[in-house]
Amino acid sequence: MNGFTPRDPDFEARVRANFDQQNFMELLGARLVSVAPGEVEIALPIRPALEQQHGYAHAGAAWSIADSAAGFSAQSLMAADEGVLTVELKINLLAPGQGERLIARGRVERAGRRLMVGRADVYAEAQGRETHVAIATGTFMVLPGLADKA
Amino acid sequence: MNGFTPRDPDFEARVRANFDQQNFMELLGARLVSVAPGEVEIALPIRPALEQQHGYAHAGAAWSIADSAAGFSAQSLMAADEGVLTVELKINLLAPGQGERLIARGRVERAGRRLMVGRADVYAEAQGRETHVAIATGTFMVLPGLADKA
Amino acid sequence: MNGFTPRDPDFEARVRANFDQQNFMELLGARLVSVAPGEVEIALPIRPALEQQHGYAHAGAAWSIADSAAGFSAQSLMAADEGVLTVELKINLLAPGQGERLIARGRVERAGRRLMVGRADVYAEAQGRETHVAIATGTFMVLPGLADKA
Amino acid sequence: MNGFTPRDPDFEARVRANFDQQNFMELLGARLVSVAPGEVEIALPIRPALEQQHGYAHAGAAWSIADSAAGFSAQSLMAADEGVLTVELKINLLAPGQGERLIARGRVERAGRRLMVGRADVYAEAQGRETHVAIATGTFMVLPGLADKA
Repeated sequence: MNGFTPRDPDFEARVRANFDQQNFMELLGARLVSVAPGEVEIALPIRPALEQQHGYAHAGAAWSIADSAAGFSAQSLMAADEGVLTVELKINLLAPGQGERLIARGRVERAGRRLMVGRADVYAEAQGRETHVAIATGTFMVLPGLADKA
Repeated sequence: MNGFTPRDPDFEARVRANFDQQNFMELLGARLVSVAPGEVEIALPIRPALEQQHGYAHAGAAWSIADSAAGFSAQSLMAADEGVLTVELKINLLAPGQGERLIARGRVERAGRRLMVGRADVYAEAQGRETHVAIATGTFMVLPGLADKA
Repeated sequence: MNGFTPRDPDFEARVRANFDQQNFMELLGARLVSVAPGEVEIALPIRPALEQQHGYAHAGAAWSIADSAAGFSAQSLMAADEGVLTVELKINLLAPGQGERLIARGRVERAGRRLMVGRADVYAEAQGRETHVAIATGTFMVLPGLADKA
Repeated sequence: MNGFTPRDPDFEARVRANFDQQNFMELLGARLVSVAPGEVEIALPIRPALEQQHGYAHAGAAWSIADSAAGFSAQSLMAADEGVLTVELKINLLAPGQGERLIARGRVERAGRRLMVGRADVYAEAQGRETHVAIATGTFMVLPGLADKA
């Protein structure tokens, strides 16, 4: 329990609808695992198409699900008619992304009226064991009257 | 002319071979446009599969080609037996990625012995006109004796 | 010439008045060198009080003048009744800050209505020669109706 | 208990000696509160000399103690002959720094052999109540054989 109270009681349905509209998540093969107020988890099975030259998942795959996990965490706290936009997001890469899947756990660090700060931690799961592979911290903008087309 | 002298005369062939090994670039549909010492350009045609919920290219696509453009810029200055690893990369998003294609222009800002700092600017090209859509700045590590498998 | 047109013709006087109100710049010993539309330069003589444990200028001194240089660059493009706030600023440190003085050259990379993206490059000047010591990129917020108290 | 085992049993004395050598911390008026393996806390009384134009503590003061808190957290895990260098550090500002003092709590997020990733959270204490004012995440380099001059 992080203490956040959603302004839109249908926040989960809205986030799920928006996730489903992100064709890019489908291209990657990402799946929305869970949505709670200010907290979203996304999983991405690692497969050869996601690899970089060393045979690990490309950092772009980790960045992308981190962005969606933190961004949708922010959106989960917004009003029904508000959309979300990534202003900036920095990722620090801690270890190679190898194993069966990547998991991004996003959460809101501060929910402002116009800007929200979010974080996502990315883990690589291999044989049931998680390794912390990336930390992302960024700024998300509230777009009043520009609800994501759900 | 940026004044960088490559340590490996075959830098372009090496960068091209490494780019070709990044399956993830192929999944996105990215193409290596040009390689010069400390400077790499990558283009990515925008198509529905890359979109987020507002109908623009997902920021993850911009981040990914920015990472590869800046990272391969760094690698172009490394010795033949050195590999490159992204330590961290932050992107600031300036405008929506819409139009025919994204173009990432990477360059090395400082070439250290163990760490390099690189930047990539991402533009969206629409009807022959470029809009600056993102700025990425990051740190890349030199991996001695761990040349990317070319 | 960067092509920016200031919305407030008195932008220079306003930026100078705001700089003078930053007690922290006085504590550091920083001086406002020049103000142009979207471009501000700040100089900081290096002295023992600014040092870290290795005898170089503390990165906090570089960050602080980079923040003020980029932030005031943003403010130079704002309307007379708008204030500026740093949302986030990342610095990459390239070389030790040693010599007679640090110089931060800020400029606006994108001037949005609500958010601006700015960059500052920090140089260390020693015996008339400049070394590039840091790159900072960040987001600055426009505060309508909350002009800095000039 | 974060599970870190220091490689130098005298880590606390070494960090304290290094902190005392940072003249810049003295100029700011910062004090080293506590040192544990991978965790360092620094406090900074807010006074007029630290203010920016709105009357709050300048973000440079917050950045500086965040850098020292995260950097010394990294150093606390290093061998006796290793020094620490900030590679990059990004700060997200959440709220104005107002009240009696700023407190930076640093901790190591990943301790690598050559690079460490650290985080510092900055709080402003006013009448016994803490407000979260900043989050900083950055990369710190291990400098073998270049111990900070203790």
